[in-house]
Formats: sequence, C-alpha cells, structure tokens
Amino acid sequence: MLIYNTWYVAAEPQELNGGPLARTVLNTPVVLFRTDSGQIAALEDRCPHRFVPLSLGRVAGENIQCGYHGAQFDTRGNFHLVPGQSSVPNTCIKRFPTLQKHGYVWIWMGEPELSSDVSSIPEFLYRGDHPDWDGGYGHFESIQASYSLINDNLFDITHAEYVHPGSFGGEEMRFYRQLHEGHDFVDQKTTYSIGERSITFRVRSLNMDAGGPFYRWMVSTSMGVEHYAGKVDLDMQVDWGAPSYTSFLLNARPSGKAPADGAQVCNMHAVTPETATSSHYFFRSVKNYGGEELAGPFMEGVRAIFDQDQPILEAQQRNIGDEEVLTRKSVAFAGDMLYRRARVINAQLAELEKNLALTS
Amino acid sequence: MLIYNTWYVAAEPQELNGGPLARTVLNTPVVLFRTDSGQIAALEDRCPHRFVPLSLGRVAGENIQCGYHGAQFDTRGNFHLVPGQSSVPNTCIKRFPTLQKHGYVWIWMGEPELSSDVSSIPEFLYRGDHPDWDGGYGHFESIQASYSLINDNLFDITHAEYVHPGSFGGEEMRFYRQLHEGHDFVDQKTTYSIGERSITFRVRSLNMDAGGPFYRWMVSTSMGVEHYAGKVDLDMQVDWGAPSYTSFLLNARPSGKAPADGAQVCNMHAVTPETATSSHYFFRSVKNYGGEELAGPFMEGVRAIFDQDQPILEAQQRNIGDEEVLTRKSVAFAGDMLYRRARVINAQLAELEKNLALTS
Amino acid sequence: MLIYNTWYVAAEPQELNGGPLARTVLNTPVVLFRTDSGQIAALEDRCPHRFVPLSLGRVAGENIQCGYHGAQFDTRGNFHLVPGQSSVPNTCIKRFPTLQKHGYVWIWMGEPELSSDVSSIPEFLYRGDHPDWDGGYGHFESIQASYSLINDNLFDITHAEYVHPGSFGGEEMRFYRQLHEGHDFVDQKTTYSIGERSITFRVRSLNMDAGGPFYRWMVSTSMGVEHYAGKVDLDMQVDWGAPSYTSFLLNARPSGKAPADGAQVCNMHAVTPETATSSHYFFRSVKNYGGEELAGPFMEGVRAIFDQDQPILEAQQRNIGDEEVLTRKSVAFAGDMLYRRARVINAQLAELEKNLALTS
Ligand code: FES
Ligand code: FES
Ligand code: FES
Repeated sequence: MLIYNTWYVAAEPQELNGGPLARTVLNTPVVLFRTDSGQIAALEDRCPHRFVPLSLGRVAGENIQCGYHGAQFDTRGNFHLVPGQSSVPNTCIKRFPTLQKHGYVWIWMGEPELSSDVSSIPEFLYRGDHPDWDGGYGHFESIQASYSLINDNLFDITHAEYVHPGSFGGEEMRFYRQLHEGHDFVDQKTTYSIGERSITFRVRSLNMDAGGPFYRWMVSTSMGVEHYAGKVDLDMQVDWGAPSYTSFLLNARPSGKAPADGAQVCNMHAVTPETATSSHYFFRSVKNYGGEELAGPFMEGVRAIFDQDQPILEAQQRNIGDEEVLTRKSVAFAGDMLYRRARVINAQLAELEKNLALTS
Repeated sequence: MLIYNTWYVAAEPQELNGGPLARTVLNTPVVLFRTDSGQIAALEDRCPHRFVPLSLGRVAGENIQCGYHGAQFDTRGNFHLVPGQSSVPNTCIKRFPTLQKHGYVWIWMGEPELSSDVSSIPEFLYRGDHPDWDGGYGHFESIQASYSLINDNLFDITHAEYVHPGSFGGEEMRFYRQLHEGHDFVDQKTTYSIGERSITFRVRSLNMDAGGPFYRWMVSTSMGVEHYAGKVDLDMQVDWGAPSYTSFLLNARPSGKAPADGAQVCNMHAVTPETATSSHYFFRSVKNYGGEELAGPFMEGVRAIFDQDQPILEAQQRNIGDEEVLTRKSVAFAGDMLYRRARVINAQLAELEKNLALTS
Repeated sequence: MLIYNTWYVAAEPQELNGGPLARTVLNTPVVLFRTDSGQIAALEDRCPHRFVPLSLGRVAGENIQCGYHGAQFDTRGNFHLVPGQSSVPNTCIKRFPTLQKHGYVWIWMGEPELSSDVSSIPEFLYRGDHPDWDGGYGHFESIQASYSLINDNLFDITHAEYVHPGSFGGEEMRFYRQLHEGHDFVDQKTTYSIGERSITFRVRSLNMDAGGPFYRWMVSTSMGVEHYAGKVDLDMQVDWGAPSYTSFLLNARPSGKAPADGAQVCNMHAVTPETATSSHYFFRSVKNYGGEELAGPFMEGVRAIFDQDQPILEAQQRNIGDEEVLTRKSVAFAGDMLYRRARVINAQLAELEKNLALTS
C-alpha cells in the first residue's frame, strides 16, 4: 500500500552538485537535476526519443541534455531543442513537482493538482537547519525493505536494548513499553498523543546508571570530559508524521540538572518508497554541543548505529515476501500500539487516495 | 516431487556450536540451535512478532532469543518470555522434530505424528562413528541442483572415468555397466539387489593396473610406502536408502590379499532438498588406515573430488530448468537401471504421501 | 520479434581453438566445435542422456565427447559411441547448419530446409579478409539489450556527437540528419537508397576542421606524421543488411586529395540475438594504412569507442523492459527515418516467417 499524494524526500541537496541524479521513487525512475541558475527539477528518467535515461546526460544551462542524441528538456519537461532541427516535438516528459525545505529536496509523485498542499512536510524536521546545531546527512539507497518496516523500526524504541545495546539500548529503559496518554515528560513512563496524521511520544528516564551508553557519551562530551561517572537524566521526544517521517529529540544531562542545560541530539528520518518492498532511507543528525569539529566522528557513530538495523529490516522483508506489511497480522507485544496506530493511519491514507482515484 | 515424510540430515552437530543456524529445508526457512544443556531444536525461522529470522538472535539458556525485541522461545516453539511484560502470547512457532544419530542432526519436515518412525534413517551410515576409523565432515550448501540429480550422480559410478579420472575413474572399470542380480562380490561384475526403499550393489575388480589412482593410493598409504607398484584388488559396496542416502564402502589391497586385510574407506552422502531445484549435500568420509594425522589431507582430497561434480550437477539443472527430474524422459545407457529404479522408488514415495494427504 | 530464418554470426573462428564453445542463440543453448580435421559443427548444448551441456566435454577426433559419461556425437548430432556398450541409441541431438564465410562462423537456427539460401549473409562483410587490410576482431558477449536497439545504434550516426565526441562525433556533422534519396556522395548531405532487405547511405563532409578526431587521426597516421593540422575530407558509406549487419567504410584524406588516395577503415558489425532482450555483438575492424604493427592499438581504440555504447544500450533496455522494441512508438527526430525503415523491414521478415509457420 503505497501512498502517492504526499511529499517525499527525493535527495540531499548536495547530491545534485555532480550533475543529474537517478533515483527510483514509487516504482518510477526519476532524474533530479539542478540548473545553472539553481532551479531544481525532477522528470521521468526516460527520453521520449529512444528511452535512454536522461540521468546519463548532463545539465546544459537551464535544461537537461540527453546523452544519446543531445535533445534538451527544460525543467517542465518540455523539449527545449533537438540538435540539427529547427523545431521540436510537441510532446513532453512527465514532470514531478519539487521543492526545497528543511535541508532536503522534496518530490511529489501523486496527483499534480494536489501538490500545492505542503502540509505533509512535517515542521519537526526544521531542526536540521538551526545555526546552533551541527551534524550531517546520511542515507541508505535501496534498502530491500518496505518503508513500513522501517517506520515500525523507528517507532519501536524497545528494539534498542537488543539491536543497539552499545548506544541507545539498555535494560533500564524497559519501561518504554508502558504507554500512557499524555503530553508531559514523566519519569519511567512513555506518554503519547495521537493526531490525525501524526503521533508524538515522550519518555523520561532519571538517574540512569548503565542504560544507554550513547546518552552518557552526550553528557561527557558536552562537559568536555572523557568519562562522566555520575547518573544521567534523559528526555526523548519522538515526533512522527505520516507516512514516514520521524524525529528523535534527545536531551541528556547529569542527573538533577535542568533539561534546559542538557546536551541535545536530534535524529531526523525520512523514508521514501522505491518500490513496495524497497526504500531509500535518509537521515540527518545534529547536536548542540561539542562543536563542529566533532561533527565527523558524531556522524560516523550515528551511521554505525543505523547500520545495525539494515540486516534486520531486510531479513524481515525476505520472510514476508511480497505480502502487504501494513495490514499483515502478527503477534503484538506491550509497546506495539504506537507503530500499529501509525500503520492504521497509513492504511487509511492509502485507502482514501484509492477511493479518490475511483471517483475522479 | 519432494518427499516430506522422511528424516533428513539438517546439520553437522558442530555447525550449532556458534549459535543458531539458518537453513532452508524443503522450501521452509528453519533455525536450528543447541541449548546450554545440549538439547537440539528446530523451529520455523520467523519470529511471530515481526517476522525477523530467529537465526539472527542467540541462544539464551534453554531458549532462543529473537535479536529484534528479545522475545524468547523454548525448544517446542512456545513463548518463554517477552521482555517488559509479565505474560506471553498464547501462540507458538512451528517446531520440527529433530534427533541426533550417526553423527548428524536430523530433521522431520512432514506430518508430525509420523515422525516417530525413524526407519528412514539408514543403518549403513553408522560407520562414521566407529572408533577404529578417522576422517571428517564436509558439505555443500545450496547446490543449485535437485536432490534427485545428486542421487543419480552417486549411483552412477560410470561417470568416474570422465569426471574423476585422477581418483576413482579408469577404463579398467567399464564393466561397472554390466548389472547382475545377486549379493556376492564377483570379479568384473556389478551385482545388485533391490529392496522396498533401498538398493545395494557390489563391484569387484581384481588385478587392476592403472584404473582408479585413488585405490592404489589407499594401498600404498596403508602399507606406509610412497608408491605401490603392484596390482590392486578392489571391492566396493554401495548402499542406497530412499530418498537420498548413499554409502560407498571401498576395500583396496595388494592383489591376492584377503579383503579382511584391505585398506577401507567409507564415503557417506546425504542430500537434503532446499527447494525443488537446489540441495544441501552433506558428506562424511572415514578410513581405517594411515592414522588420524592423515585425516586432514584425506578430507581435502575427498572434497576436491566432490568439487568436480558440482559444475556438472548445476549445468544439468540449468538445462532442465523447472521440469521435474524424477519423471523426465531421457535416453538410457547400459548401467542406468539402478538410478532409474531409485527414481521410481522416490516417485512412488512422493505419490504415496500425496494420496495420504488427500485422504486425511 | 526474433527472426529465425536467417544466417547469424555464431563465433569468431579462433574462439573454437580451445575446444567446444557454449553460446546461447535465439534462446537456444548451442555448442560449437571444430573437429580434428577442421569441420565445424553446432549442436544443441544438451546431452540426451542426462542433459549435461556438451560444451563441458571435449572434442574427440571427429566427434564431441560428453564430459559426464563419455558418450560421443558426430557433427550431425548422431551418437558415435557410448562407452562400455556395443550399440548406440537410435536418437540424435538437434543440429544447426553452420558455414564459414567472411571470417566468421555462421549458424542457421530456423527451418533447416531453408538454410541453403545464403543470401542473408551480406556481401559487404567481405572486406575483413582482404590482404591489403589489417585489423582485428572483437565481441561483446550477452549485452543486455535487444539486437534491435543495437541495430538502431549503428544506423544512427547522429549519436556520435554526444556519445563519441573524442572519435567519430562533432558538430560539423550535424548535416547527418538531412536525408536525401540518391546514390552519390554529396558534400554536407546524407544520401540513401533502400532495398528489399538492405539499406545504404553515404555522407561526405569536405574541409572539416574540428569534427571527428578519429578521421584526422586516420589522415595523420596514413601520412606518417604525429599531427596533421590541415583540413580533412571524409566519405562514409554505410551498408546495412537485415536483420542485423552493418558495415561502415570510412575514407579520410587531406582536403582536396582524391578519395582513391584516402586512408580507409572498415568497421563491420554483426548482432546475434541471445534472447529477445540480450545480444551478442561481434565487430571486425580493418584499415588499409599504417601497417600491421598498428593493428593492436587500432583495435584497442575501436573497442574503447564501442565500449561507450554499451551502458546506453543496456539502460535503454531497462527502461523498455520486456516490451517489443521493433514496434514500440516513440518520438522521432530528423534523421531517424533510416533506422525506422530497418525496423519495418525486420518486423515484416518476422511477420512473414510467422505466417510461413502457420501455413506449413
Ligand atoms: S534518446 Fe534522448 S535524444 Fe535520443
Ligand atoms: S521480531 Fe522477534 S521479538 Fe520482535
Ligand atoms: S550426460 Fe552425456 S553421456 Fe551422460
């Protein structure tokens, strides 16, 4: 169940620095490019002349030039010129709306007339661009797993104890599974609130000893010491927006200090379906402590953590095969409610747009 | 035509030393594991929570722990615990009966209530564990050929002249193709007997000169000499049990000596279907001469010989495609009768269990 | 739309020096071999005994010996012998007519009784064997593109400006797109003539400066100088024969010299369908200047040029998928008429033989 009428992250802006970029989104081969004046465009990656991918060509001024016979197309997908002939064919390539926001290039693959509604781009991704934070980008191209499995993975912080024991996990956070409706941070509780196409939850864990080495590392680094031996307080706020956006805002501090003095990390995740069973997974991580000189090692660490998830996600998909993830039955554990609610929201969005297509 | 109601070799016991082992058997992903107390179990390799293969997890005491959220299952496939919750779901994973015998872990993939009948485990595989013999294990994971083609290959010793000219083959053994009913070793004859689900045949070749360098090597090694220049006598008894077990008992000696004084090698082969067109091929080879210090080079030599068959088996399968091997028509040569009888036995077993399934 | 009743290039003769050669042609696995006396034969690459490819065996005198049980087959596909038995089965392997001409081994995959008609082997390929020319062979095995896309590519010299700017291309040749019926070389014009199953076109470009570095290189090399700074005259005659043969005869000279004094290169191309969407692409390039000691670097240069086409051809095919190329609609540019006529000729040939099959 793919959702089309929504904005997806198509690329990190710097991916377009080297010329046209090929990326399959929702089963469609797309070429993304930035013109000399800085306009960004996305077209179907197939020249109408002889079907060569335009991504094998190059940017020529405000146009993209096919690498086979040199035909050029403008950012709207119209023929700009055909070498050696004075007129151009009266046809065009399918063009996909794009925009830049929150440090990403976004693409709209759905009904073009609905693209003006940008409400599907979640505000909570703004943190990547804040001047007081530093960090970096990363992405996994073509993970062989449905966007929905990656979504589940992000929601479900209970896996940290088993998949990320050296960073986010630890037995001290087993309370993650106890869900309570609410908007406040409460020690040893997960409080959540569910919107129409968004879900937020918060956890607070005061006086931690062993659990979550990453949080302890945030504290020691922000204090400029090699080891911090005391207890740690953690607040984490997770914001999800349908269909596949998640932000983790972490706040770690020596126990007893005010949250306002905490070291903060924000991990932002965007999943773009490539096909029904494969996805592009973009992430951006920023921190507000330690200075830019630590941004490199910080990003390496973050990526190493996300690397631990990929084999699990792909093994899940192999075991599921082509079956639909969103509506597949499975045994539920305590703490599974939130990702299941997200699945329901996504399934409804997919259903809605199927009905829309039928009636239009 | 896969046969389900039979015991198959699932693993060499030492394969379970390093934790859970994933292996697909008869199209089903299976996880095999040994608990701390030494119990061996086989479960479907798919956690009912979110479908991650349990083989990505680890053994925890008497249970197996899923690597994603830490749920544990006992050797019967029942939930043992779910972290962070006091009760467990009232469901279970499909469990496959296992047992250990003749130095292998065996698995039953068919109707569970029929698994108590262990008569499909052939007695002739006992030799691997005899204290006077030494040698080793080997296996080929996921050979891209039907178990039936591998079976044919084992029966059909006439291929030795062309595929294994440096070891088992030689023009002197062309008589292999002359089949005679009977139980005795007769020089320059192949005698055979056919049971309900077993076939045995014997060859004897006295006074060999060039044929079969491997047999000459058995003689020289057992005599403790570098070269043995005289003539060689060979007895070979081949035992087959449906659907896919074969043992070769070789006895080679200086011509004129009694068989009781011969150097002996036993090659045991077990083929486990992975899918209809791919197989796991286990072998175990032992010898009663030369001492354990020669077991290493001996096993290297044996493996090199079996390596010669794999490209042929896989090329056969590519030429056959998805067609059914067991009942496929082909030109028959002298000497083909035995593997064809084995095919008939296997086809009948497959038919029988299909009818059984229809009436139950 | 594959065409069967035509002669295809199966191999370069020297490919058979090392024993049997496996090559799939029109979806059929074929083994090609040369006997000790020099006869060349092509059989279906599948032993009727147990379906092993004969290409895994070896040539034995005037026969081919299967590598599994040593059965031998003659060049007609009949059993020659079966080891260990006095008579042979009364069956045979499918045999495909072959012949040698113009420096290639040719194969006929269609109705055997039609193979005597060799008119589909184009005369224009004769130049490879002329004693005054030197050069060499090359081929690309299993390019993942329909023969038809490769055909289009060869016809369509307008791609040279974009794909081969360092050799054949250049803005000065944009006139390539202006097609005029006729048989003569006319400066700055492309003249063409269309036969029943052949197409010829000619271009002449006098007084060239920058365009086509390869032509300038022909001139300087033939003059024995490192750089030739003057203007260049070029004649190029392109001969195509259905379904997939093309020859380029290039004549380059210092401007003003007579064509008879020009340096000449002939590039000959033969495309053999492997499947509907993959092909073997054979080429042979010869030159009449510079001497044999330059044949090696000359062939390296030629191959490097053809290397530039492969990624384009394969990307086209990926974008087309399994759709039929010959009849697929697409936007046409000026200059596309000739390859489109070739497509029509091939589509008619395919149609014709389909009807023939229906009525016979
Ligand atoms: S394929 Fe793009 S210009 Fe020809
Ligand atoms: S998938 Fe196994 S415990 Fe969650
Ligand atoms: S498969 Fe060719 S001789 Fe047996």
